[in-house]
Amino acid sequence: MICAGFAHGLRMIGAVLSARRVRAVAVESYGAPQYQELLTEAGLRTPALPLDEGGTRTEDLALRGVGAVLLTPAHQYPTGGALRADRRAAAVDWARATGGLVLEDDYDGEFRYDRQPVGALQGLDPERVVYFGTTSKSLAPGLRLGWMVSPRSVAQEAVAAKGHVDWAPGALDQLTLAEFITSGEYDRHVRAMRLRYRRRRDELVAAIAEHAPGVRVSGIAAGLHAVVELPPGTERSVISSAASQGLAVEGLESFTHPSAAAPASDAGAGPDGEGAPARRGDALVVGYATPSDSAWSGALAALCGVLSRPEFGSKIHP
Amino acid sequence: MICAGFAHGLRMIGAVLSARRVRAVAVESYGAPQYQELLTEAGLRTPALPLDEGGTRTEDLALRGVGAVLLTPAHQYPTGGALRADRRAAAVDWARATGGLVLEDDYDGEFRYDRQPVGALQGLDPERVVYFGTTSKSLAPGLRLGWMVSPRSVAQEAVAAKGHVDWAPGALDQLTLAEFITSGEYDRHVRAMRLRYRRRRDELVAAIAEHAPGVRVSGIAAGLHAVVELPPGTERSVISSAASQGLAVEGLESFTHPSAAAPASDAGAGPDGEGAPARRGDALVVGYATPSDSAWSGALAALCGVLSRPEFGSKIHP
Repeated sequence: MICAGFAHGLRMIGAVLSARRVRAVAVESYGAPQYQELLTEAGLRTPALPLDEGGTRTEDLALRGVGAVLLTPAHQYPTGGALRADRRAAAVDWARATGGLVLEDDYDGEFRYDRQPVGALQGLDPERVVYFGTTSKSLAPGLRLGWMVSPRSVAQEAVAAKGHVDWAPGALDQLTLAEFITSGEYDRHVRAMRLRYRRRRDELVAAIAEHAPGVRVSGIAAGLHAVVELPPGTERSVISSAASQGLAVEGLESFTHPSAAAPASDAGAGPDGEGAPARRGDALVVGYATPSDSAWSGALAALCGVLSRPEFGSKIHP
Repeated sequence: MICAGFAHGLRMIGAVLSARRVRAVAVESYGAPQYQELLTEAGLRTPALPLDEGGTRTEDLALRGVGAVLLTPAHQYPTGGALRADRRAAAVDWARATGGLVLEDDYDGEFRYDRQPVGALQGLDPERVVYFGTTSKSLAPGLRLGWMVSPRSVAQEAVAAKGHVDWAPGALDQLTLAEFITSGEYDRHVRAMRLRYRRRRDELVAAIAEHAPGVRVSGIAAGLHAVVELPPGTERSVISSAASQGLAVEGLESFTHPSAAAPASDAGAGPDGEGAPARRGDALVVGYATPSDSAWSGALAALCGVLSRPEFGSKIHP
């Protein structure tokens, strides 16, 4: 089913879940606040699952009393890991056992650099997973074109939820994209962009290693952004220093679920898995795809200039 | 403000009105049911205003206790009259006196044939009228592009109602349309289409006058459809006879507000203007723009064949 990007698809699924009398959808501890907001507008609660080095703790799903879970398995947004195989299996097992649905936002699935593509969760059980893809990063967010692959019953309910008075992407855009895909040009385009973005990522990592050698960069196996870790308590001042250099970077704080926003002192989930999700330390979320080729090296130098200041970077990861 | 067609714009305005604690929006006795449904989904009641030969009785607005009124002043949909000057003034006067809003669906405003263009109601008071235009008939419904001109405060609230998670027409389509308009080609296109549709309308009226001379055709000064009046009690059987000839025509019944759906025996509004809106007689709503050039003359002959049957047409308007 074609939709006008991920948000439109998620809105339809939110309406489907609400009509099915689902009360809550589990979300990741880190994510884009507008998607939680969209589920909240559909009348759904959005409890968070903790996140550790293996990704989101899907084995805790049974404790959350939810009817669905929203995940970014290919490249957790924005912290950047891939969901580990046992966690992927646990999500699908939970869905099978409870009749729940896994909502798979295949975030950055097409921009993976260092190893084999991560398969979609949807392949593990097409009857229990709703898959969302988008052209927002492969072509342009302004195109407003995405797609949703869902079990037949969900698709029928989504069409009903959409109704006569919903709107959809223009037919001309849909036909143009269909032609672009069937001609093979879309694949060629994505492969070419993947090489370009990989080169940018390599330049970012190399420049930080050279100019701010104590700073750790993570979440870089895929996607168009990196997470740059900072000494505790410096996130806001780094962002404003960067802004004064004309750089628009975001802090990890603005992607943090309210239940994970407390300081990390109690180290998150207790043995029963029901504790508050652990909060990560201060970090920047640095998108590296947006600057034009001519602006890129200047932006990179400015970022390294900020990160190499003694008060921000160099001491913490010796 | 650009929107994805009239329905998208009306949905935003429904949210604005709802947030302003408006409880009800008056609608016309005849109209597309999906727009009423859309207002209902926004939590608004939709009482109907009666319709007579001068158009919708906007002088009854004060009796309806509404915060807004939705009108099709250029070409009432689907009965086809233009709103009379005193009725236009009454709508704006009501809005000024009560702080209400007039929602002007400029339906078929660009396809007027026989006299000077009817000015937009919005010109009478831009602070009290929200104007809606669309490319759905001038270009294609599949394009999903329309526009909304509203008082500044309404526009700001509409942007807020839209939120981050709403979707809009693709940027490429918007830019393409902007270029089409500024180059003058959009105007040329609309003028050319107006001539084509006018020729079709003339052929329709002439063919019915020749083959079914008793049948009255109305609502034809503008737009892409005509209302073909039928003897009482024949609407459904004419539609099914037409369908058996491969013609998709609709009955006026499916456009009738529930409060106007009772038989016409009590002749509608009482002296206080609060009675049930008068129901019109049986009629077909015949769109004449859809058939291809090659299908048109066959479709027209088939329609005349149905209308000229003694049981349907010829006797009632001698």
